[in-house]
Amino acid sequence: MTTNRQFRLAARPVGLPRPTDWSFVEAPVTEPADGQILVEVHYLSLDPAMRGWMNDVRSYVPPVGLGEVMRALGAGRVLASRHPDFAAGDHVTGAFGVQSHALSDGRGVIKVDPGLAALPVWIGTLGMPGLTAYFGLLDVGRPAAGETVVVSGAAGAVGSIVGQIARLKGCRVVGIAGGADKCAYLTGTLGFDAAIDYKGGDVKAGLREHCPRGIDIYFDNVGGEILDAALARLARRARVVICGAISQYNATAPIAGPANYLSLLVNRASMTGMVVLDYADRYLEATRELASWYRAGTLVSREDIVDGLESFPDALLRLFRGENHGKLVLRVAAASGQDS
Amino acid sequence: MTTNRQFRLAARPVGLPRPTDWSFVEAPVTEPADGQILVEVHYLSLDPAMRGWMNDVRSYVPPVGLGEVMRALGAGRVLASRHPDFAAGDHVTGAFGVQSHALSDGRGVIKVDPGLAALPVWIGTLGMPGLTAYFGLLDVGRPAAGETVVVSGAAGAVGSIVGQIARLKGCRVVGIAGGADKCAYLTGTLGFDAAIDYKGGDVKAGLREHCPRGIDIYFDNVGGEILDAALARLARRARVVICGAISQYNATAPIAGPANYLSLLVNRASMTGMVVLDYADRYLEATRELASWYRAGTLVSREDIVDGLESFPDALLRLFRGENHGKLVLRVAAASGQDS
Repeated sequence: MTTNRQFRLAARPVGLPRPTDWSFVEAPVTEPADGQILVEVHYLSLDPAMRGWMNDVRSYVPPVGLGEVMRALGAGRVLASRHPDFAAGDHVTGAFGVQSHALSDGRGVIKVDPGLAALPVWIGTLGMPGLTAYFGLLDVGRPAAGETVVVSGAAGAVGSIVGQIARLKGCRVVGIAGGADKCAYLTGTLGFDAAIDYKGGDVKAGLREHCPRGIDIYFDNVGGEILDAALARLARRARVVICGAISQYNATAPIAGPANYLSLLVNRASMTGMVVLDYADRYLEATRELASWYRAGTLVSREDIVDGLESFPDALLRLFRGENHGKLVLRVAAASGQDS
Repeated sequence: MTTNRQFRLAARPVGLPRPTDWSFVEAPVTEPADGQILVEVHYLSLDPAMRGWMNDVRSYVPPVGLGEVMRALGAGRVLASRHPDFAAGDHVTGAFGVQSHALSDGRGVIKVDPGLAALPVWIGTLGMPGLTAYFGLLDVGRPAAGETVVVSGAAGAVGSIVGQIARLKGCRVVGIAGGADKCAYLTGTLGFDAAIDYKGGDVKAGLREHCPRGIDIYFDNVGGEILDAALARLARRARVVICGAISQYNATAPIAGPANYLSLLVNRASMTGMVVLDYADRYLEATRELASWYRAGTLVSREDIVDGLESFPDALLRLFRGENHGKLVLRVAAASGQDS
């Protein structure tokens, strides 16, 4: 009999999640009921948005309930299926939760081809982060060739794709990231025109230097002072895409709003929030385009893989410490070779 | 020989403008040169935006220089013309400045019909404030019948027109204003569905009560805590129009940004700045529509007229004390009867 291992939400965190906010539970794996599939989870996607799901507040999805398995996107293999659309052996992605085995009714579960890309890529560049970058930049940002695009969290799962798509669209691309290593990766490997190290320098001065004609699109993953610095540098008719605010997710005091928001007025600019779930009917089209760029090598995907489901509580914190280089992924069990 | 009386900017104010920030100058009126007109200024428009023009910062128009006549929109009569488009006796509006007589090369000067509306209306409901309301609401806000529109500064020159146009478009309209009198005017005379007195009550509670399905369009003239309260109450796909931030114009400390800006993300909402000058090529079309509503009595215009050019320094402060009911207008000289 196989054992399912799970992390459940034990308490609502104040500030950064602590080990005591989780309970680790072991229970027998049960067989799928009619209409269900049983998935062996190989990889879990660790995303900044997970912090928001732990709060008991109205948002774009309901919060995870206390005692429930922590919500997470993942990728794995179907072990058993009583669902007409899936067969044992299929590779799939879906919201499987922080656990080694998941029962699913198939909603939101997508079959993926591990021959085209490894499973970690299917939950990163070809998964929700890639789709978030795609729709956030192209639909909300609406880039035109020659425009200046600035992205924060630029070495992360979403930011790295935003910058690369902007480059593919003929934009001048400036990334903001923490540390010289990440910045060198942006300009060296990903082809960004410039990178600004927010840990090592003055972001305002960097934006003045690298955006002499102002910022046409600012894609924000971080909020806080960096958002304010970008607002101060907007060009006429600039578009600010609000995708996330990782600097604020663990704040215990009321968050600071962007003091420079009146730059929107002076520059006739807009600031628009986006949630990738709204684009579900276009996921297939977008995934095809992302995959074609990925196969052609014009879209580079980098995953930062942490081993072992038991590492989950600390691995999640790496996001908020800015330690991950590329998409942060948790490998649930030892690699089976064929997936990674 | 006629004397021109002027207020010139003597010092850049810190906080609220003080009497010593102005110099009052008297000088002989000179004859127009070739291509110029001489205008006797009858009314001056007092607008919150004037405070911004006094600061030495980059904005949508250059600041007023020290020693220059204070910039102001006004209405008056052409005394003498050496310009082919204007004749003595024409009634005109334009950026004549805070003075009793203005020489102009005709740029931005518009002939108006005092038989259709009194001159104060031509610098209010049928002038820049009306056009700001028109384009801000219709072009940026894009109201649909049945939507809930909230406007702050609702008893002011722009806000009162925003609310009335929204009502004409079939929206549910909620105004935020200071004091029971203004609120009674909004619901009683202007036909707003509800009014919230920010001086006498809790704006958040008022918005919960009067916007049970959330706010679809928030038209902001004030910034500060009221903007934050509105952000907390946005409906899905809401549009926030940033027209002004009168609560912040005299701030001596760094302004507080809208802490609830992440509501834009949760609700896939947008916040967009607007400047009426961008719509110059459509002023005529918009003025025609505003005038037709005004003549039909479906658009009520209210002016709050202060007498005497010499009252200018204190009259301007009435805006920031929230004392004006409707469009604040300075009558430069005793009314001639035919204009008012």
